[in-house]
Amino acid sequence: MPDRPDQELQSGTGEFHRIATYFAPLASGNDGALGLKDDAALIRSPQGRDLVVTADTLVETVHFVGDETPADIARKALRTNLSDLAAMGAEPMGYFLSLSLPKRIGEDWIAGFCEGLAADQAEFDLTLMGGDSTSTPGPISIAITAMGSVETGKALKRSGAQVGDGIFVSGTIGDGFLGLLAAQGRLPPSMEAENLRQRYLLPQPRIALGRALVGAAHAAMDVSDGLIADMAHICAASGVGADIAAPSIPVSDEAGEQVADNPDLFADMLTGGDDYELLITGPEQAIRDAAARSGTPVTLIGSIVAGSGVTVRDSDGVALTFLQTGFRHS
Amino acid sequence: MPDRPDQELQSGTGEFHRIATYFAPLASGNDGALGLKDDAALIRSPQGRDLVVTADTLVETVHFVGDETPADIARKALRTNLSDLAAMGAEPMGYFLSLSLPKRIGEDWIAGFCEGLAADQAEFDLTLMGGDSTSTPGPISIAITAMGSVETGKALKRSGAQVGDGIFVSGTIGDGFLGLLAAQGRLPPSMEAENLRQRYLLPQPRIALGRALVGAAHAAMDVSDGLIADMAHICAASGVGADIAAPSIPVSDEAGEQVADNPDLFADMLTGGDDYELLITGPEQAIRDAAARSGTPVTLIGSIVAGSGVTVRDSDGVALTFLQTGFRHS
Repeated sequence: MPDRPDQELQSGTGEFHRIATYFAPLASGNDGALGLKDDAALIRSPQGRDLVVTADTLVETVHFVGDETPADIARKALRTNLSDLAAMGAEPMGYFLSLSLPKRIGEDWIAGFCEGLAADQAEFDLTLMGGDSTSTPGPISIAITAMGSVETGKALKRSGAQVGDGIFVSGTIGDGFLGLLAAQGRLPPSMEAENLRQRYLLPQPRIALGRALVGAAHAAMDVSDGLIADMAHICAASGVGADIAAPSIPVSDEAGEQVADNPDLFADMLTGGDDYELLITGPEQAIRDAAARSGTPVTLIGSIVAGSGVTVRDSDGVALTFLQTGFRHS
Repeated sequence: MPDRPDQELQSGTGEFHRIATYFAPLASGNDGALGLKDDAALIRSPQGRDLVVTADTLVETVHFVGDETPADIARKALRTNLSDLAAMGAEPMGYFLSLSLPKRIGEDWIAGFCEGLAADQAEFDLTLMGGDSTSTPGPISIAITAMGSVETGKALKRSGAQVGDGIFVSGTIGDGFLGLLAAQGRLPPSMEAENLRQRYLLPQPRIALGRALVGAAHAAMDVSDGLIADMAHICAASGVGADIAAPSIPVSDEAGEQVADNPDLFADMLTGGDDYELLITGPEQAIRDAAARSGTPVTLIGSIVAGSGVTVRDSDGVALTFLQTGFRHS
């Protein structure tokens, strides 16, 4: 007989106990999940709304170091998906989880992982709807497909930026990159480095801001590939250019101290990714009002201009030129 | 700088070429996929229909041997998901693909993989809607979340079986198990063994039958865990028992020859899984009519009875008792 190495979270081959104990409670309250007991889940799209669906996978050693708590790993996996929903202006509904686990992973890890999911389900108001679990000879892999909804035809896209729009970012930029360095032990140990590491471990999806931006912003996306690369994505999709003032880009106190010690880090912070802040274009006052309604700090960093590509200027107004992994003065 | 090891299929960090060349064509014709250029996809649920969503992952060495062509691997990954949609009576719409690839995988493999997806997209009328691609230090892993739709409130479930229902299966049972043995080199090489291997490689999701069964069947699921285990799932969900006549269970000519040589294989065929046929309960004539409309062969193998659990009887009407991985005469 071959092994029966995998199971539907919806069914229960062999591992009824694990599903009943850990996963079914995460699906309670959602009738469409059918108690994780059927071949698939049912979703009735709310009247007058579009479904918004995104998929993101985290692989051990690639997307997380491996020494994080299982709860933190679960929350990061869910939050990277929620950040994509936020960028489209969507309200979260539920998610499907495909979990690949090596044999060394025991019940304790799964219990902790599901505690992390439960915490974020409560924080962001969504439920598990289905998925599967399989063994793997490789690293832990967590594939999530998350769903939300947005008013029909109103989803925020990358392609709506218009000449004259203000360019805003939420929160601060560069903490994700510096937090990765801290997690890799590449920053000197300090309270600040630990704060940055926490920021890398547990990104903050900007759901409330995204919701408030529906009808206000012209374009939005989340900063996952780095501020400059993601700005370039909006410019390409919208057929416009971007003019950004480097001194306006908001950085955290912790990041500011790192840059004071090593000014070269600033370029990496703009190209390093993993910030999960929202990058937004639109009429300045409308964006500021939406941000205020959602209680989320945003900062004006530039404007959309005719042409193409991203120009970043230093405090003297001199344009900086980008290399693949950073930038230098032209 | 850290690697930038992953990418959204919806975005295009670094690997615009790969996305534009291989993946974006798979999303063409589906406006909601937004050309794979945004943070998420948009789905407008068709009027009067429920969305049906399922997630299934295939891992190299666990779910496929590894020496299959990339096209066959792609098609099997898609088809195991389509089989779940078929079991709910759903019409396929689209899917999200999360692909984890070791560094040894090159462009040729990806091109072949996408050719396989394209072939099955055409055969089953669905499109790629989004996903992501990441590197992994482990085996190839393919996580798919597939979506379809069904008339509101009409999805086939496991919980609807009623006393007096006929129990039917589509196609033949046991080829999946024998095909796995053949793929593992555990059957003597022959034309029949190769046919069984092909059946294991490329399951046939019973979409047309599932669609025809909407409004006709009382309960359905796909046979992925083995006929007996899956029948037990329906019984547990419906609060009924099942009485099955072993001699009625349909087997292919190839499987029949294997069983003639080694009668012990028959038990494994009923418990071995991977058949991806539909297991159906309902009024006999209605099921036969639906099967005829869809051009799919089905066979009556027993009936739903009061009580609980699955009884399988031999040609003398003697009940067989199941062990964990097979059964024996009680």
